[in-house]
Amino acid sequence: MIAIKVPLVKNILEANDKISDLNKKFFDEKNVLVVNIMSSPGAGKTTLISNTINALKDEFKIGVIEGDIQSTYDAEKIAETGAQVVQINTGGACHLDGNMIRDTFDQLDFDNMDLLIVENVGNLVCPAEFQMGEDFKAMLLSIPEGDDKPLKYPLMFHESSVLLINKIDLLPYIECDVEKIKRESKKINPEIEIFEVSGKVGTGLVRWLNLLKEKIRQKNDPK
Amino acid sequence: MIAIKVPLVKNILEANDKISDLNKKFFDEKNVLVVNIMSSPGAGKTTLISNTINALKDEFKIGVIEGDIQSTYDAEKIAETGAQVVQINTGGACHLDGNMIRDTFDQLDFDNMDLLIVENVGNLVCPAEFQMGEDFKAMLLSIPEGDDKPLKYPLMFHESSVLLINKIDLLPYIECDVEKIKRESKKINPEIEIFEVSGKVGTGLVRWLNLLKEKIRQKNDPK
Repeated sequence: MIAIKVPLVKNILEANDKISDLNKKFFDEKNVLVVNIMSSPGAGKTTLISNTINALKDEFKIGVIEGDIQSTYDAEKIAETGAQVVQINTGGACHLDGNMIRDTFDQLDFDNMDLLIVENVGNLVCPAEFQMGEDFKAMLLSIPEGDDKPLKYPLMFHESSVLLINKIDLLPYIECDVEKIKRESKKINPEIEIFEVSGKVGTGLVRWLNLLKEKIRQKNDPK
Repeated sequence: MIAIKVPLVKNILEANDKISDLNKKFFDEKNVLVVNIMSSPGAGKTTLISNTINALKDEFKIGVIEGDIQSTYDAEKIAETGAQVVQINTGGACHLDGNMIRDTFDQLDFDNMDLLIVENVGNLVCPAEFQMGEDFKAMLLSIPEGDDKPLKYPLMFHESSVLLINKIDLLPYIECDVEKIKRESKKINPEIEIFEVSGKVGTGLVRWLNLLKEKIRQKNDPK
């Protein structure tokens, strides 16, 4: 079964890369910065995205694609911020891919958008394998998940440009070595930028917001 | 791409079901109770399994299969309990399947085993789709993951006979409606048995242990 599975997966990934390249061209033409947000279920993606929109919406036009297996729960929360939002229900699939993103193109107004935030399906494994045409990937790791995660799920850490260590407000109540997370993440991906944040308390977001602002401005004025 | 993917996945699942049926026959002949433990990354599977072994090891012979994408970190922790343990590294695959379990058959002594605990890869999506020949599935949901998880990841709740709501000691510090988790889980799966536990504090395990003891005895004395 392994012998059958590998080539199929490879074909799927190659087909996906082609569609993602087309998506990337489209986003570049529209000068829209696209970030793909990934994490385990319940690590705090939706809260981070809401906080990010609320902090940036006076300055930039923001769109969101919400990926979930089913339900529109997260899209409804994001809609409260006033951002354009589209929900993708994967109907069982454990990640978003380039094709699913392409299916939203007639439902979002990219001419009125500086930043597109894609919330991937909650999963620390598969989303890291699938490009979608994004400019960069950012991952959340919440400290209740434990400090062994870089060692056990290295691909996600390898593929992400940014690691947000979330729920840092829970540190007094949890055994988690944040320095170990940073050290192990840097071993896998020396270029990764790491921010400690708390979506609930709202602290620690400034560096993340500054990074987004800088990247949006670069994309709008590529020279 | 979706149109290509669906039949492939179906073939993989059908091939897996056949192997799992063979595994089930083998486990039944050996009178070994097999439980497949699933959850998101960092929900506390390894700690629960360690605690379970330590509580039952004087009464029953226990084996463990540890599933991880890479690393032998969890298997080393389990080995400290004195249980037989085998590590499966999936090398990227996001779940265990029947074939991987079969590959351990020459590495474990099933004639000296009453209970086999399989720790699946941390993932709230894909493991629920793949049988391995187990008697039943048990899932953990840790309360920092949030009370919306049954709604968003229903298949895992549907497939599991037991739900362990873990890290209940963190309730004072987290916004999580435990009654909502129970209510939504029962809607998806009215038969699911739900236990509130804390792997860290060690409380709440008695009902889980009693359930395992009863099932081991039934398996050893099928009549």
